[in-house]
Amino acid sequence: MGIIGSIVLHTVLRIRDLPWLGSRSLQPLVCVCLLEGTGATPSEEMNGTGNLMDFLDEPFPDVSTYEDFHTIDWLREKSRDTDRHRKITTKSKESYWELIKSLLDAWSGWVVMLLIGMLTGTLAGVIDLAVDWMTDLKEGVCLSAFYYSHEQCCWTSNETTFDDRDKCPQWQKWAELMTGHSEGAGAYVLNYFLYVLWALLFSFLAVSLVRVFAPYACGSGIPEIKTILSGFIIRGYLGKWTLLIKTVTLVLAVSSGLSLGKEGPLVHVACCCGNLFCSLFSKYSKNEGKRREVLSAAAAAGVSVAFGAPIGGVLFSLEEVSYYFPLKTLWRSFFAALVAAFTLRAINPFGNSRLVLFYVEYHTPWYMAELVPFILLGVFGGLWGTLFIRGNIAWCRRRKTTLLGKYPVLEVIVITGITAVLAFPNPYTRRSTSELISELFNDCGALESSQLCDYVNNPNMSRPVDDIPDRPAGPGVYSALWQLALALIFKIVITIFTFGMKIPSGLFIPSMAVGAIAGRIVGIAVEQMAYHHHDWIIFKNWCRPGADCVTPGLYAMVGAAACLGGVTRMTVSLVVIMFELTGGLEYIVPLMAAAVTSKWVADAFGKEGIYESHIQLNGYPYLDVRDEFTHRTLATDVMRPRRSEPPLAVLTQDSTTVEDVETLIKDTDYNGFPVVVSRESERLIGFVQRRELTVAIKTARQKQDGVVSSSVVYFTEDNPQVAEACDPQPLKLRRILNLSPFTVTDHTPMETVVDIFRKLGLRQCLVTRSGRLLGIITKKDVLRHMAQMMNQDPESIMFN
Amino acid sequence: MGIIGSIVLHTVLRIRDLPWLGSRSLQPLVCVCLLEGTGATPSEEMNGTGNLMDFLDEPFPDVSTYEDFHTIDWLREKSRDTDRHRKITTKSKESYWELIKSLLDAWSGWVVMLLIGMLTGTLAGVIDLAVDWMTDLKEGVCLSAFYYSHEQCCWTSNETTFDDRDKCPQWQKWAELMTGHSEGAGAYVLNYFLYVLWALLFSFLAVSLVRVFAPYACGSGIPEIKTILSGFIIRGYLGKWTLLIKTVTLVLAVSSGLSLGKEGPLVHVACCCGNLFCSLFSKYSKNEGKRREVLSAAAAAGVSVAFGAPIGGVLFSLEEVSYYFPLKTLWRSFFAALVAAFTLRAINPFGNSRLVLFYVEYHTPWYMAELVPFILLGVFGGLWGTLFIRGNIAWCRRRKTTLLGKYPVLEVIVITGITAVLAFPNPYTRRSTSELISELFNDCGALESSQLCDYVNNPNMSRPVDDIPDRPAGPGVYSALWQLALALIFKIVITIFTFGMKIPSGLFIPSMAVGAIAGRIVGIAVEQMAYHHHDWIIFKNWCRPGADCVTPGLYAMVGAAACLGGVTRMTVSLVVIMFELTGGLEYIVPLMAAAVTSKWVADAFGKEGIYESHIQLNGYPYLDVRDEFTHRTLATDVMRPRRSEPPLAVLTQDSTTVEDVETLIKDTDYNGFPVVVSRESERLIGFVQRRELTVAIKTARQKQDGVVSSSVVYFTEDNPQVAEACDPQPLKLRRILNLSPFTVTDHTPMETVVDIFRKLGLRQCLVTRSGRLLGIITKKDVLRHMAQMMNQDPESIMFN
Repeated sequence: MGIIGSIVLHTVLRIRDLPWLGSRSLQPLVCVCLLEGTGATPSEEMNGTGNLMDFLDEPFPDVSTYEDFHTIDWLREKSRDTDRHRKITTKSKESYWELIKSLLDAWSGWVVMLLIGMLTGTLAGVIDLAVDWMTDLKEGVCLSAFYYSHEQCCWTSNETTFDDRDKCPQWQKWAELMTGHSEGAGAYVLNYFLYVLWALLFSFLAVSLVRVFAPYACGSGIPEIKTILSGFIIRGYLGKWTLLIKTVTLVLAVSSGLSLGKEGPLVHVACCCGNLFCSLFSKYSKNEGKRREVLSAAAAAGVSVAFGAPIGGVLFSLEEVSYYFPLKTLWRSFFAALVAAFTLRAINPFGNSRLVLFYVEYHTPWYMAELVPFILLGVFGGLWGTLFIRGNIAWCRRRKTTLLGKYPVLEVIVITGITAVLAFPNPYTRRSTSELISELFNDCGALESSQLCDYVNNPNMSRPVDDIPDRPAGPGVYSALWQLALALIFKIVITIFTFGMKIPSGLFIPSMAVGAIAGRIVGIAVEQMAYHHHDWIIFKNWCRPGADCVTPGLYAMVGAAACLGGVTRMTVSLVVIMFELTGGLEYIVPLMAAAVTSKWVADAFGKEGIYESHIQLNGYPYLDVRDEFTHRTLATDVMRPRRSEPPLAVLTQDSTTVEDVETLIKDTDYNGFPVVVSRESERLIGFVQRRELTVAIKTARQKQDGVVSSSVVYFTEDNPQVAEACDPQPLKLRRILNLSPFTVTDHTPMETVVDIFRKLGLRQCLVTRSGRLLGIITKKDVLRHMAQMMNQDPESIMFN
Repeated sequence: MGIIGSIVLHTVLRIRDLPWLGSRSLQPLVCVCLLEGTGATPSEEMNGTGNLMDFLDEPFPDVSTYEDFHTIDWLREKSRDTDRHRKITTKSKESYWELIKSLLDAWSGWVVMLLIGMLTGTLAGVIDLAVDWMTDLKEGVCLSAFYYSHEQCCWTSNETTFDDRDKCPQWQKWAELMTGHSEGAGAYVLNYFLYVLWALLFSFLAVSLVRVFAPYACGSGIPEIKTILSGFIIRGYLGKWTLLIKTVTLVLAVSSGLSLGKEGPLVHVACCCGNLFCSLFSKYSKNEGKRREVLSAAAAAGVSVAFGAPIGGVLFSLEEVSYYFPLKTLWRSFFAALVAAFTLRAINPFGNSRLVLFYVEYHTPWYMAELVPFILLGVFGGLWGTLFIRGNIAWCRRRKTTLLGKYPVLEVIVITGITAVLAFPNPYTRRSTSELISELFNDCGALESSQLCDYVNNPNMSRPVDDIPDRPAGPGVYSALWQLALALIFKIVITIFTFGMKIPSGLFIPSMAVGAIAGRIVGIAVEQMAYHHHDWIIFKNWCRPGADCVTPGLYAMVGAAACLGGVTRMTVSLVVIMFELTGGLEYIVPLMAAAVTSKWVADAFGKEGIYESHIQLNGYPYLDVRDEFTHRTLATDVMRPRRSEPPLAVLTQDSTTVEDVETLIKDTDYNGFPVVVSRESERLIGFVQRRELTVAIKTARQKQDGVVSSSVVYFTEDNPQVAEACDPQPLKLRRILNLSPFTVTDHTPMETVVDIFRKLGLRQCLVTRSGRLLGIITKKDVLRHMAQMMNQDPESIMFN
């Protein structure tokens, strides 16, 4: 007997003792010849229908699973899990073996988390290493071992400064290797050509793999994961095949130099890992609700390894991705994120024992007056977020509706070509975006060889490395500023067209790059202003000559936070991630100020972040927790059937025949049917799932003698008098009847209904008035109504 | 017309158009002479009862508030707020003034957060300064200015080392000041005596103030705030008087040297600030649901200033304190926590521009092998947590039941006396606990003068200050170890008896102290082992001679996290708080490992943390989100009336007289009554609140002619035929009828019911079967049932 069945059974046993049962029994019950096979009721034993018990105890095949693109019923999943848990607890008292099994079951959650963390960390490490190598492959090759990246190649080199180390003899650019000349126009052109060629090759490979093997592997995956976590089924989206292809193509896409990052896709990869390990334990694989708890934790692990920020990852999962996030999941996510970060640290892809992608250390505090540029960066971030979301959504809509969408491979090739051709001449766009951000975040020490640190040094200076006073900018800084400004414009434009192509693409890194460039420019400007005008009133109090007062790297970080916040509307998780990068509580106030400003500015132009916009664009049935429903409509305005529509498809408790039911199933595609006392009174007694009904009738027709088309289907609970003469044999189906369907009255305000759907994760809700069934509201109806109220196209929402 | 009224009105307007209304109208409606004053229905205008409208449009006085020790209805509060919001939005289109008012209303949330942050930060700063001064006052006084603490007094001193600075001439101990001798037995005894005397004076003042002016100011306040946030009303718990007295007595209690901290009470103080500012805006003061959102944010601000950990504060509020925490609140909490931290930084009570209470910087990474001692510290933390909770709860129960509870002042005096007498001889217990923790967390630099840093230095050493290799321990370290061990035992025992006395007392600091002492002892042991036995296999790989491999301060921090985790069962917020103290992501893995272990070990002995235990001890009606309800009971087993009880007190829609209603109100103390079609059919049509019913009848009797005891009360919606002849005049009360009461069927499993109560924050829920009303389940019934199922004393739960 299925899990639902046993709940019903329990119910049946209880109801027998209740006083008000008498009135129900008075209803005429004709022609009920078969007993319900509850398997344990005393009355049933008396009547002795042992031969039927076997059939009824059998679980229905597959009734618990949902169909593709359908919504799950959270309450039902939860009660199924509680039931499973109860069963195990009861059994565990029977024998030692069962006790061990129950302990294993209790620990399986932690085991899954451990496995997810380990696999996610490993994959992230491998991706990091592969991206490093392939990005450098566009420029040259390591002679000592071709599989070394530029940095690894020169590790063994004995040069002391970074600049010299970068030019170590083992590493050769393509032109040098092929022609022997490392300088000159010819070498430059050859390098340029090969750079573009490699980029095109990588991106072609990426898009082809996605197209042929796993169409779901494209994009960042976060909008879809949000939808899945909210209780939607998308088969194969988190499959093994997607995992494999996404991992491979992610490396190719990032290496191709396109303006995209690996952070979003890493969350998708982590969720695929989570789904993979779910299948090892029936506790998770057979319960869509429990599975989603694991996926929430996996998302946390994904962000944890993407940035080396475990706490930020957990908060990201909580704030941005998850729908149902009980405290237990918080704790487990934490564990998964920890294991993943730890595994990544053991692999050590950055070669510095750090967890963090962009590790920075600043040595100077910030000052109150600096809040002004920080808030300006916040405003910039908000504007960038708005521009990006509007531009990208407009472009994606065009891609969906015009011919453009028909040639995804060509699109990728063209965008890659443009990116590579424009990126190569500018040193700040030629390198990988992560490296760029890393350099922009860094404070200029004395040993720094970067162009950005080309300050005019005081020859008498003999201060320690980490306390260098403000200096006038040298020519390198000025040329770097120009190049950065060009890079900024380039990144802003190209990112809008890149995100949403048919390759894995995250937007954390490009957004952060835009912010970091803008921030660094502002930072250098403020620094130079403070140096040259330290008598100005705003600098007077805190910036004496010879002091180190402005840290341009901090501005870059603040800018990055502001831009990322503008695009994603993350708040707490954003600041925590950035905080984990710097590790200094000192800098949390600037980050918070920028994030707050950025969100406010962006929200003024539109409440939705990029992920919500894409969810809406794709019409996923996602019931956002953040949207407030403030309209004055009532349940009666939303429920089906409308006035003009035919009446609701219902079953009656004791007057529908098997044939009627079969016709109903054939003619409609509803997920289930309410059961009423009679068509006249319309008093609701329960709800029956379509799948269970189909299976029950099919099984009964095969296994139970005498069940024919004209058999009456009974949902009543009473043990009727046996009347052997009557024909055909009835079919008792009370065990598949859900006796506690969720109901609201027709007067319930829709805001309450929306709240109930959100918080309880319902699939549908029946509408009654004084116990009389009036209609039904499904999640689809709610979403459609909300869209209508917001003047959106209600037809764009996927079917329930 | 009240807010609820207008929802109902809206409902009425809608229902009129519905097709199935016909059947209802057939019911015989006799003797209905008065029209419902909906004020806008066309039919009403036709009948022209303008003189009655004024009365009906008047809001009922005070119907929206709840009585003391009652539970709020979250759904209702939410719908009231949505309604208010709608009204403002509609009005804002009318004039510019209304538009400005609506903008002000939208921004009032941020204004409240700003005010809370500023006041909380200021209070925290003042408390810090006052505690510093008064703690030092127990030992001596500053001659240059009596209101300077020891540290402030010696700031201006020119001595270079910490040791010398501590002995600056401006600061004099009492004995020195009074007798002129700073050394010798006499001076020691005199200092000892005055130390105890001051402590007794402070604690006597604290307990007296609490007793006389604000009994609610005692304890940590977190259990009560959890209960309040879950939707319970405790009048005055967050009042101005409590705020004032708690702030003052907190300073006294902490300064008295008792084993308690200021962190928990600061959360209470912050919530009082939140409540105070709520009263400025009717949006918050008149809506208990919205008020709780503000209080959640205030709690975050409280922890933010307590530790200088804004992110940790937000997570603490989310994980530990709050019940209803929408994302909007997360964001605002974040803002409040930021402002509070920022204000505190501006006040700068620690004189170092740091936000953090215990700022530490470590210079050495940790190694895999060190995980073993870290996990052992986790086990210790878990055991301590269990011991503390069991011991403290047993003692508090004894306090409640025996004579002990009758003499709270005496109890405080005795405990203070014992604490002071035992604490003075040991330098580690004599100073304030925060200072102790701070010293234990610190890494030993070359300039450190602490006894704990008395290592044998290599005379040839010429390394920079922050990279000192491991050294053999000197005699100072060994004597410090003994003193620490004694301090550990002392703290463990005395804290159990201190927490729960009638003075403000937090347990964060004492718990952390216990862990820090244990951790430091373990750390020094490991360090010395590594120094003397660096050829052992476990040290061989990472600890070469002359390297700085073990940081005892880190062990102290890990120990503190483990102990705090064992007591409170915080997980993520704990690690984030500790992480914000160190600011190094490096050390997050040790902290996580210890926190995980500590929670597992403690959970093995009992699932409840100290706050939940105290909630249970005090019998607050708190529905914990974390408890899983796994029993097989159904709604029918829990609902009232039971089989032996009299039937449910219901009203009928058209056959109850005013007298009947008044008798019902007098005879029962239910919060509300279901309304049914008739006693025979028992079909539910709505629910009416007791308060609203009382007020409506009282008002009608005063203002409406012809309403007498024998008037029939009508809840029907139909506009009846006017029959002037009939007497007495009926009373129509549909406008106070809630037409969408929450119902479940009698077959609903209790786990679902519990889930619904938790997630929707219901006050009561009606139980029906096919539309027939069977009974009612209140939050109290749910809690009682849960307690019963866990074999607890169900009578200990406060009335609903």
